[in-house]
Amino acid sequence: MSSFWQNHIKLSVFGESHGPAIGATLDGLPAGIPIDEKMIEGEMKRRSASGKALTTPRKEADKVDMLSGLFNGRTTGTPITGIIVNSNTRSGDYAKTKDLMRPGHADYTAKLRYAGYSDYRGGGHFSGRLTAPLVFAGAVCKQVLAAKCPDLTIASRIVSIGKVSDETTLLPEDYEKFAVADPMFPLANESIKEAMIAEIKKAAADKDSVGGVIEGFVTGVPGGLGSPIFDGVESVLASLLYSIPAVKGVSFGAGFDFAAMRGSEANDVFYIDGKTVRTRTNHNGGVNGGITNGMPIVFRVAFKPTPSIAKHQKTVDISTMTDTEIAIAGRHDPCIVLRAAPVVEAAVAVGLLDLLIEAQGVQG
Amino acid sequence: MSSFWQNHIKLSVFGESHGPAIGATLDGLPAGIPIDEKMIEGEMKRRSASGKALTTPRKEADKVDMLSGLFNGRTTGTPITGIIVNSNTRSGDYAKTKDLMRPGHADYTAKLRYAGYSDYRGGGHFSGRLTAPLVFAGAVCKQVLAAKCPDLTIASRIVSIGKVSDETTLLPEDYEKFAVADPMFPLANESIKEAMIAEIKKAAADKDSVGGVIEGFVTGVPGGLGSPIFDGVESVLASLLYSIPAVKGVSFGAGFDFAAMRGSEANDVFYIDGKTVRTRTNHNGGVNGGITNGMPIVFRVAFKPTPSIAKHQKTVDISTMTDTEIAIAGRHDPCIVLRAAPVVEAAVAVGLLDLLIEAQGVQG
Amino acid sequence: MSSFWQNHIKLSVFGESHGPAIGATLDGLPAGIPIDEKMIEGEMKRRSASGKALTTPRKEADKVDMLSGLFNGRTTGTPITGIIVNSNTRSGDYAKTKDLMRPGHADYTAKLRYAGYSDYRGGGHFSGRLTAPLVFAGAVCKQVLAAKCPDLTIASRIVSIGKVSDETTLLPEDYEKFAVADPMFPLANESIKEAMIAEIKKAAADKDSVGGVIEGFVTGVPGGLGSPIFDGVESVLASLLYSIPAVKGVSFGAGFDFAAMRGSEANDVFYIDGKTVRTRTNHNGGVNGGITNGMPIVFRVAFKPTPSIAKHQKTVDISTMTDTEIAIAGRHDPCIVLRAAPVVEAAVAVGLLDLLIEAQGVQG
Amino acid sequence: MSSFWQNHIKLSVFGESHGPAIGATLDGLPAGIPIDEKMIEGEMKRRSASGKALTTPRKEADKVDMLSGLFNGRTTGTPITGIIVNSNTRSGDYAKTKDLMRPGHADYTAKLRYAGYSDYRGGGHFSGRLTAPLVFAGAVCKQVLAAKCPDLTIASRIVSIGKVSDETTLLPEDYEKFAVADPMFPLANESIKEAMIAEIKKAAADKDSVGGVIEGFVTGVPGGLGSPIFDGVESVLASLLYSIPAVKGVSFGAGFDFAAMRGSEANDVFYIDGKTVRTRTNHNGGVNGGITNGMPIVFRVAFKPTPSIAKHQKTVDISTMTDTEIAIAGRHDPCIVLRAAPVVEAAVAVGLLDLLIEAQGVQG
Repeated sequence: MSSFWQNHIKLSVFGESHGPAIGATLDGLPAGIPIDEKMIEGEMKRRSASGKALTTPRKEADKVDMLSGLFNGRTTGTPITGIIVNSNTRSGDYAKTKDLMRPGHADYTAKLRYAGYSDYRGGGHFSGRLTAPLVFAGAVCKQVLAAKCPDLTIASRIVSIGKVSDETTLLPEDYEKFAVADPMFPLANESIKEAMIAEIKKAAADKDSVGGVIEGFVTGVPGGLGSPIFDGVESVLASLLYSIPAVKGVSFGAGFDFAAMRGSEANDVFYIDGKTVRTRTNHNGGVNGGITNGMPIVFRVAFKPTPSIAKHQKTVDISTMTDTEIAIAGRHDPCIVLRAAPVVEAAVAVGLLDLLIEAQGVQG
Repeated sequence: MSSFWQNHIKLSVFGESHGPAIGATLDGLPAGIPIDEKMIEGEMKRRSASGKALTTPRKEADKVDMLSGLFNGRTTGTPITGIIVNSNTRSGDYAKTKDLMRPGHADYTAKLRYAGYSDYRGGGHFSGRLTAPLVFAGAVCKQVLAAKCPDLTIASRIVSIGKVSDETTLLPEDYEKFAVADPMFPLANESIKEAMIAEIKKAAADKDSVGGVIEGFVTGVPGGLGSPIFDGVESVLASLLYSIPAVKGVSFGAGFDFAAMRGSEANDVFYIDGKTVRTRTNHNGGVNGGITNGMPIVFRVAFKPTPSIAKHQKTVDISTMTDTEIAIAGRHDPCIVLRAAPVVEAAVAVGLLDLLIEAQGVQG
Repeated sequence: MSSFWQNHIKLSVFGESHGPAIGATLDGLPAGIPIDEKMIEGEMKRRSASGKALTTPRKEADKVDMLSGLFNGRTTGTPITGIIVNSNTRSGDYAKTKDLMRPGHADYTAKLRYAGYSDYRGGGHFSGRLTAPLVFAGAVCKQVLAAKCPDLTIASRIVSIGKVSDETTLLPEDYEKFAVADPMFPLANESIKEAMIAEIKKAAADKDSVGGVIEGFVTGVPGGLGSPIFDGVESVLASLLYSIPAVKGVSFGAGFDFAAMRGSEANDVFYIDGKTVRTRTNHNGGVNGGITNGMPIVFRVAFKPTPSIAKHQKTVDISTMTDTEIAIAGRHDPCIVLRAAPVVEAAVAVGLLDLLIEAQGVQG
Repeated sequence: MSSFWQNHIKLSVFGESHGPAIGATLDGLPAGIPIDEKMIEGEMKRRSASGKALTTPRKEADKVDMLSGLFNGRTTGTPITGIIVNSNTRSGDYAKTKDLMRPGHADYTAKLRYAGYSDYRGGGHFSGRLTAPLVFAGAVCKQVLAAKCPDLTIASRIVSIGKVSDETTLLPEDYEKFAVADPMFPLANESIKEAMIAEIKKAAADKDSVGGVIEGFVTGVPGGLGSPIFDGVESVLASLLYSIPAVKGVSFGAGFDFAAMRGSEANDVFYIDGKTVRTRTNHNGGVNGGITNGMPIVFRVAFKPTPSIAKHQKTVDISTMTDTEIAIAGRHDPCIVLRAAPVVEAAVAVGLLDLLIEAQGVQG
């Protein structure tokens, strides 16, 4: 792979932060699915920073130009390519510090991997900006999923930012009727919002940043999706979620809390609910043995703090191989988590659609 | 995929717990690598339960018959297939309860996925027994890695079992000189062993089970491996680790602890160490932007408690669609974590070798 | 890839001619398909040489031991592995000539590719014997196809052996009602059989060998299969057919004869036949733009003469890098074409099932 | 797959003939390779019709806009995307005949495959125009190959157009020193040019078209490339060549002529040539057992006559399911072969680079 993801559907994400354009190509979709460009625009807006006080002031219009794969408002079944022209880039910001390896960033590892030839401007292909084409692809996949499984919903909520955690416990029914009050700041418990905002502002004031955790969930998902051993739901989704910059942890259901549980507690007992089988609890996050069981898929994604901080940090100058210091100027989010929710959902939309098409076929 | 994993190297794992044999085929390896069958045997023993008081008394010889791909003790470059003949299986144990969906198991989801035709005996293809061929494949990959990167070591330690946690903090140097006292019970802090054993015995006495967390680490790994966006180190390794039954969480470096950290704390600052670049801390677990930076790769894997417990549990009878109860008889580990360490290492060996061959080529 | 083929279904072929066993693993199949082992046996017999005067006297029982993926006579949806234990091998035959590169064989190229470590005995992994697991896999795929598309038939006929050609022209209807008189020697025109046998015997008497052409055809195939640009029917099938040793040409429909045709002659005009669309002629071999049109898929496969001949040939000794001579002793077919028909059909069965599952899904 | 090709390098081709743009993304390339945009322009020109009397008068500038993957004139190692904006399209030409299935085209099969939703204008994604992005991708791959293997050359010549064949026999040495006189009309025997041109003009005058055969060859190729069983040189190249519209036959070396040969004649005998091993003849086209032997790779590709002809043809109206007639107006090549040479070379460049990177690695 690399910047191609391919299973039953295929996704290519291309571009650099300060190159002419970034974009994505999505192939292997069913034909005839209506695609609403307004909906894509809405998802792009959720990710973009425009006008958000808490995130970077860099204005990103993120308008997607659709180049192919649509005809009369529907998918043709051939590759859909969308590009986003880069503008408002100040490449000069980056040239002078190109040999200073920013701690926590991919500068140094990209140098190793690409023999010194990668585009260093704004992180190049490693920039968080490359999540924009992923959100575009996810918006298309969400619409295909909606056409195929009308009950299926992919959503997310913020469970922690810095040291502020939302400890609300949600039961399976809660996920199934979850309604987000503010899509730009999705929470189960609105009362914690102020504390979270304060946590971010405090970090920003300190020229620092904070991390956080997002919980994603999918309700109305058909049972029986996923193909273990190597193509189980968790393998497919984790692989995609780890392609999002700054993600360092992915867990399903009770996740790391399982370690301290007894089997009698962890096992989700089945019961008959009319004509279907459900579980009372959902510690397994809707997945047993790598296959969906029809309960909500629930997973958590840990984001590290934005590595770009204005504080002085020690580092190395790779051209002279000497120790030095860096203070990263420019426009950076003090907390990436707010903008990450639609990205997490997009990655999962791609993975779920893949699993659905594996089961039903591209013409199914 | 499904039970094939394929990137640059390819792995197929086949078989059912109570079928004639289980096995694995590994392809895309370099030719001419010496393979020590004794070493494979040793890894198989680490995974097997033979004579281990704390794990299931089912005797599994797990002798691997090598069918292909080796000639005069070296890899030929063509597929290596090893099979393990199943014996000592008591299929009668399972027939009578085949319609009772064991909570926490894949019984119900396999019914959905495979239309009711999967082999239900002992979990069939979903049995933990299928980790044996993975350990075999990992043992081969470890030897290829050893031939290509003599400094590279893949190891693991138990960090928690049930409510007993080893809070020892290891610095990069500690990983680099880590020596396991007991490969069957690998710990950083030997003094915690008794408490962990007690935790398992207590669960067993209660006809119950416990989960745990394993930390894996790879030292001496070359920098510059991994191909983001979609084929970064974390994506490749997480995808493989999630193919291990009972794994519900995978994190890298500080993982979920990143959420509460500030950027200034989380960033691993670089420094010059002779002719190389290192980081003081290793919160990123040896991976920046999906690419190895030469520091130890460190990751944690959460295992849920063994779902097979002797305690009575509520469940459903799928043939009559009625609520009922189940008490799982038979031989089951009260804690899967002890046997999981070599499996975790095997999954990572496969993934790392893949990344190495991507970089260097199969003839490189 | 290499010895893994993977698209929607996955196939791994493993083993060496003189190793312990050869075999194949097939994954990604639908569950619940009845598999008749007698039918598999029949296909294996078509390929094997037993008792055939015109082919090698080496006795190959080619009994397939099924290790996994079947339960109560049906596919479980998990990998099906079958192995064939090697016996009646006289490895001594090969040791003395191991440094003499047999002309037309893979001895020299395998040396280059596998750095001198490949198993040289009997051609190792390059032996025609490795077509046995392919025929096994094809026999399984044929049965899955039969269950999904009851009208679909995969067959083949010999169109030339050496200088003897069967010039019979078959119309679409002829393919649709084609009945093979002798499955061991499938012909459209029985009267040419004697001349073909004579051609083979003459070559054998001269310590030489002859090539030939097989025409394969698939009738009753659903329209709309195939996913251009890169996964069209011709790309998928040609890729598989070229994995058969000695194949050096693959064409579809009129193939190379198209070159001399006018468009007005080459185009297959459509007409309405009741509720369906058909073409009058079938020069395109049932495929337009890489997608099936519902007419018979017709293709031709050119086989070179068996490179193993008893005649003296010039060659090189690779250990001394000197020119020398070789006369290949042992048991070799004077014409591989007779045994190749079931192999060609098997390769196509794998490819077609892949295209069908792409369209309909593994659970479709 | 479908419009993604992925092995070690990955290629996505997207767009429709009358959509906003067509393009290609190429990923998995080594970093630091200098890319000359003038050379790309030259290859695009070879494919395009501009100013060529014998081909369609439609003016296609085919200017490639490079969106990503290049920095300071070199590959960065991240995806290279190039797009070609569509202009000079007269969509009105196609709307009125959209229900008339053009014989020999993909109109009818695309309807089946894409459920009636494909873009019918100018063949949409099935248009020969989609070979432009392939030529772009091939031009990049040729430059990477040139950097890695300075002796490697990919070239082609026309061997037949309609009933006019160039029977010139080329020896291995001839391929190695082959120099094309006119890259727009590459021939081994210049004296046949007039007859070929006459053949095309005659067909055009008859409102008809002719097919032809191109021979491609690669000299200076390293031995030992290719990974049988399923990833041999012939499988990889044939799969790519069959993705070119109108290709209906692909053969290697003596191809279909092998059928009538004796083994003693077909086998290419080895000899020592200084420090290397060569073959006297090259009937196997540089490939034994799916692996390159260092001799020129030689292959032939059969093209059917352009299916678009001005002559009246019978066909069906798919909306009314009635028989009818069609006469295809518009601008069409009377012979596609002239423009196909650079396309054939491009497909082979992609395949060869893939095999090279498999052997040497992306960082090798």
